[in-house]
Amino acid sequence: MGSNAPAPVPLALAPPYLLFLGDTVEPGFAKTAFGLRDWAGDRCVGEHVLPGAAVTTGLRAMSPVEARAAGASTLVIGVANPGGVIPPHWIDALAQAIEAGLDIASGMHVRLVDQERLVTLAHRYGRRLIDIRTPPPGIPVATGRKRTGKRLLTVGTDCALGKKYTALAIARAFAARGIDSDFRATGQTGIMIAGDGMPIDSVVADFIAGAAESLSPDAAPDHWDVIEGQGALFHPAYSGVSLGLLHGSQPDVFVVCHQPGRTHTLGVPGYRLPGIDEVIETTMKLGRRTNPAIRCGGIALNTGDLDADTAAALFAVQRERHGLPVADPMRGGEAFDALIAECLRE
Amino acid sequence: MGSNAPAPVPLALAPPYLLFLGDTVEPGFAKTAFGLRDWAGDRCVGEHVLPGAAVTTGLRAMSPVEARAAGASTLVIGVANPGGVIPPHWIDALAQAIEAGLDIASGMHVRLVDQERLVTLAHRYGRRLIDIRTPPPGIPVATGRKRTGKRLLTVGTDCALGKKYTALAIARAFAARGIDSDFRATGQTGIMIAGDGMPIDSVVADFIAGAAESLSPDAAPDHWDVIEGQGALFHPAYSGVSLGLLHGSQPDVFVVCHQPGRTHTLGVPGYRLPGIDEVIETTMKLGRRTNPAIRCGGIALNTGDLDADTAAALFAVQRERHGLPVADPMRGGEAFDALIAECLRE
Repeated sequence: MGSNAPAPVPLALAPPYLLFLGDTVEPGFAKTAFGLRDWAGDRCVGEHVLPGAAVTTGLRAMSPVEARAAGASTLVIGVANPGGVIPPHWIDALAQAIEAGLDIASGMHVRLVDQERLVTLAHRYGRRLIDIRTPPPGIPVATGRKRTGKRLLTVGTDCALGKKYTALAIARAFAARGIDSDFRATGQTGIMIAGDGMPIDSVVADFIAGAAESLSPDAAPDHWDVIEGQGALFHPAYSGVSLGLLHGSQPDVFVVCHQPGRTHTLGVPGYRLPGIDEVIETTMKLGRRTNPAIRCGGIALNTGDLDADTAAALFAVQRERHGLPVADPMRGGEAFDALIAECLRE
Repeated sequence: MGSNAPAPVPLALAPPYLLFLGDTVEPGFAKTAFGLRDWAGDRCVGEHVLPGAAVTTGLRAMSPVEARAAGASTLVIGVANPGGVIPPHWIDALAQAIEAGLDIASGMHVRLVDQERLVTLAHRYGRRLIDIRTPPPGIPVATGRKRTGKRLLTVGTDCALGKKYTALAIARAFAARGIDSDFRATGQTGIMIAGDGMPIDSVVADFIAGAAESLSPDAAPDHWDVIEGQGALFHPAYSGVSLGLLHGSQPDVFVVCHQPGRTHTLGVPGYRLPGIDEVIETTMKLGRRTNPAIRCGGIALNTGDLDADTAAALFAVQRERHGLPVADPMRGGEAFDALIAECLRE
């Protein structure tokens, strides 16, 4: 694509949302709905479950018609089941939502726009079917041009250990300090929480960095984009996504996310986890290519499985070892305040 | 996708080929046809040009019917014009080729399978439309599992400076020494030359390393895959492709390709080229993740613009500086023999 191509239109959901849980019985499959409740609760009017469901977000149960009357604009499928399929017995409920005047948003692998009945109805009722995993058209090749504004990227020693929650917590802390900032989502759940974003792992390989550039455009000098990391530079399957995201994001600051006790890469037998110091060194070295001023703002530990004293002891050890603030963003407190201060240091 | 998914069927062209040049007047746009003539001449029966063409491969001109009679199985579009479009006035000629009994292969961005008339004809005549830039279905996520056999990957200080020609020359040199080896193509022209391969830059980001794993499967212990590099780790737009290819290829040996005199990254203003030593160090460091025994086999210089004496002097300087064999694979000679010997060293 030429460099004069128009900027891609970001995926965007119209709030507020009705969270759809289908007939899910396994809480682990409803992570997207829980993420929305926890991080975008003010944009969720209620939940819609089918008979047989054994999972609830605790939000008020309502039908699509009731949700529409309560102001809802989009039914969000809050489930990520194995295989990413939309079961046939959900189609009636989704069809009713369209008839009630709602857009439908899905992060499933199976696409809404391939469901003939939903497409027909969406056309008839003038509603949108938004497949979060489908990148917007028109993503350009990266230019490498330095953009205005400031950027923070979360990176990890592995996948699935807190890069999204850390970025969300940092964005919330920035906002609480009156700093002009945006959370920039790069994955399915993040995009639903933010309301827009770029499914970076679904972009064609040549356009990863270009997609990252599009996601965090030029901004005011004091504006911060807090960008959700994806994959890991040391992950044998997803490292390409992570390097493209790093180069395209041009972060001024990165925060390393780690889960204490995790010793091996998830789902990849035989791969020991890299040390936090290795991740810092490699991210610095590679990140300098597009932002020579890149620096590490601290270390975020996912200590959900530990008690408060053990977590605090761990922070002290790691702080000493790396000479950087260490905190669990979900615990907050002084440790996290110190990490935020280091990220914002001029 | 699950790890039990069937291996993707590689793109595969049926030889021999009729090279189609359309009405091209600019030799630079016919690089694919020239590459096929130079590297797969034994699989090319002739060329087919339209009125107005000012480019020739020097092969015998023949119509699709004549080519079919001479044994051709596939008409290969040997042109890569700006934008990658198939001009409407080529469609008649492509239709005639299908009617003559030929498959059609194209590396254009615009896809053959989106050309209604060609699809109808291909169906009627039982011929295939092969879009080289469209990855095969079923590419798995990488497993990181160490595979049997040996692998060599060409890497570069930049794009477009000889990674494909270097890999082809090394594969040819291996074959000349009686070594069981395969050239593994990762780009449009390489795939056409090899007859099969994986368009690594067109794969969805999550599957880059998985695509590289599929491209060079388990092999006999003494077998070498010589893998065509793509992009460059220091390229601000394409680094993700290069890292995924590096991790998925698990090379035992890599060769660094460089063009003397090139000081800046092509098409990306403001980016100085990394030093050869930086590329070696970074490739070693990142490559060790999936193959701890990775090593550099030498440096390939593209000296097409220099006279023989200047080139030889340059080889000596770089050999001294890096302590590695340095050669121009297209010049061959003792310098290239030394590089091949170093690549094969136990």
